[in-house]
Amino acid sequence: MQILKASKPTGGMEKMTLFSSKEYQPLTESLAVTLAVKMRIFSENAVLSCSEIGDGNLNLVFRVTDTVTRQGIIIKQALPYAKVVGESWPLTLKRAKIEADALKIFGKIAPEYVPVVHFTDDVFAITVMDDLSHLSIARTGLIRGEKYPLLSKHLGEYLAKTLFFTSDFGVNQSEKKELQRQFINPELCKITEDLIFTDPFIDSPTNSFEPELRSAVESIWKDAELIFHVALLKKSFLTEGEALLHGDLHTGSVFANATETKVIDPEFAFYGPGGFDIGQVFANLLFQALANEEKIHEIQEHLETFWNVFVDQYSELWNTENQEPLSYAPGFFDAVIQKFFQDALGFAGCELIRRTIGLAHVADLDSIQDIDKRLLVKRKTIDLGKLLIKSKKEIHSIDDFIKVVVQTLV
Amino acid sequence: MQILKASKPTGGMEKMTLFSSKEYQPLTESLAVTLAVKMRIFSENAVLSCSEIGDGNLNLVFRVTDTVTRQGIIIKQALPYAKVVGESWPLTLKRAKIEADALKIFGKIAPEYVPVVHFTDDVFAITVMDDLSHLSIARTGLIRGEKYPLLSKHLGEYLAKTLFFTSDFGVNQSEKKELQRQFINPELCKITEDLIFTDPFIDSPTNSFEPELRSAVESIWKDAELIFHVALLKKSFLTEGEALLHGDLHTGSVFANATETKVIDPEFAFYGPGGFDIGQVFANLLFQALANEEKIHEIQEHLETFWNVFVDQYSELWNTENQEPLSYAPGFFDAVIQKFFQDALGFAGCELIRRTIGLAHVADLDSIQDIDKRLLVKRKTIDLGKLLIKSKKEIHSIDDFIKVVVQTLV
Repeated sequence: MQILKASKPTGGMEKMTLFSSKEYQPLTESLAVTLAVKMRIFSENAVLSCSEIGDGNLNLVFRVTDTVTRQGIIIKQALPYAKVVGESWPLTLKRAKIEADALKIFGKIAPEYVPVVHFTDDVFAITVMDDLSHLSIARTGLIRGEKYPLLSKHLGEYLAKTLFFTSDFGVNQSEKKELQRQFINPELCKITEDLIFTDPFIDSPTNSFEPELRSAVESIWKDAELIFHVALLKKSFLTEGEALLHGDLHTGSVFANATETKVIDPEFAFYGPGGFDIGQVFANLLFQALANEEKIHEIQEHLETFWNVFVDQYSELWNTENQEPLSYAPGFFDAVIQKFFQDALGFAGCELIRRTIGLAHVADLDSIQDIDKRLLVKRKTIDLGKLLIKSKKEIHSIDDFIKVVVQTLV
Repeated sequence: MQILKASKPTGGMEKMTLFSSKEYQPLTESLAVTLAVKMRIFSENAVLSCSEIGDGNLNLVFRVTDTVTRQGIIIKQALPYAKVVGESWPLTLKRAKIEADALKIFGKIAPEYVPVVHFTDDVFAITVMDDLSHLSIARTGLIRGEKYPLLSKHLGEYLAKTLFFTSDFGVNQSEKKELQRQFINPELCKITEDLIFTDPFIDSPTNSFEPELRSAVESIWKDAELIFHVALLKKSFLTEGEALLHGDLHTGSVFANATETKVIDPEFAFYGPGGFDIGQVFANLLFQALANEEKIHEIQEHLETFWNVFVDQYSELWNTENQEPLSYAPGFFDAVIQKFFQDALGFAGCELIRRTIGLAHVADLDSIQDIDKRLLVKRKTIDLGKLLIKSKKEIHSIDDFIKVVVQTLV
């Protein structure tokens, strides 16, 4: 932790300031404070403290705090590589711009659920935004047993608004195309294409699973019907630009407490099928029920609330804000919602499987200490994933979906 | 017609040359010749003639010819407005760049079916390309009763190659996204969205039809099931970036003779559903059979050849050039082809209807002099259009399709 006085920069400091360099460099705690000072976010004589609090996977995250008022900001900087596989996996810094631009757009559409962006710099891949340290990462909190009674309602509203107002129904169809151009995001999409839709379904060296699961995993690779459906879901992800997606909307991208919910980290944002974001929420809520049978009712309520709020809100926007002249066509709304739902089930199935046997796991499952229980839960997760992918067209409602989940759990 | 000697430009000419101006100006025949001279396409002492040969709708088209060798080139320049509705409908000049870029890409993929581009200038919205005056516009030729025995085979090959090699199956998936960015084409897409998918299905002032057709047209506007399907087709057009489409592949965009076929005018190019291009070909062949019952066998053969060649070629490319790791999934190829086919039937239906009652008609129908026959043909065209849109999922093969067409005709 670095502590510095927020006094007016001296000539000497000016020279060493961040933006005297024209080339990207990773920030240090000291440089992060200098940046905060230059931005005059804090009062002139504030004494600031700074810590790097990121999980260090793809980004540096500095929290700069006024040591007296305790008010703070977050300075997030993209790293030019993914640490998860060492420095050998270079990653475009452009994702910081995608993330900042997406935060601004989503923030305009659903300000109650998105942190305010104060400043961005494309060269340094920096986004300065609200400090959310009074909230917890939803995944971590849920694993700790915290309750977020409004989480699902908030996420339903967030997605109804963002998926509607960035689609051809909610925005001028020409403007939507310019947004689509702005959010062409090949490098981050490739991570999803590989790690969610491809590698878990073939014998790829990126996969990672307990040796005891090998036969279950091999049965995935040999399941022609499953691979067929995954191929179609991948095609949908590759081609269907329905709305500006968050693109990585798992519970680790959500900050929450009992009353507040903020969606962060949209660096995977791109124009894709709306059901992908919905499916990520489905799946990442499901991990909690899979890992803890006693949570089934809590998660069931979350799933129902999330979906029902989403449909209600989307329906209201459809009826009041629609820009599509043919939107009045009888049955059109239902067809759009049904597609979201079926897509979401399929994408949720892919997420369940890839978080169990692919490269990037979730703590909900991996933190289960008892090896027998963990293996049992993971087998159930795989089974539920396969079922959702293959049977998505036979699951017609959120009630059907809950029934399928409960049947898998018992 | 302007005749000029292709001698080396004098100092005086240099001053007045086209590109001494930095701003767009419409070419004259004289300026077109100056440009040809500057490009040194012709030998130094050639005597050149020049005529403006465009239909004057959206573009100026100059043919510059060596009066001795008869060799020529085409200089096409976009106009900043659409003449079809007067100068009041401004149109982006960027479409010249879209067209030139698309010609280059399609020319690389299917050189036998695309004119060579020699020169482009974005500011002046100019494309210089091969002169195709030894060929006829296929629509005009077909109306005159000319036979193009290879037209359908060539179009099948052209579309198999262009739809495959610009899709996620035929090109690196990151490169495809950059192409998609390059071909975001809001203004030209809006013309299609309005004139094909919207206006004909509502009581829009852009519609144009014989008063005798009013009750048939009103039955379209009141047909809830039809509008529902059109809304879904429009959504597909708006969201599904399967491949780089020509975007306006009617028989007026095709030059042909007995042995050769060239596809021109891809200024509507964008990433959309492959079935749209296929459907435009279906529909524009169908106009010929609708207008002339005695041509049903000729057109039936064209439809069968076009589709079967398309499937054969696409299948070969799928099996030999596929870049999608999951493409081996049993049933995936069939699902992709089936989607192309059903989409194409629906899009063909929209084209049949809009060319009958919308803003832009086709000479195949409008040139029928006998008013009773013309009305009968137009009613059949509307009926076939409605049937294809509503029943596309029940038409499973090209044979089924032909049967439906024949039933409508008799």
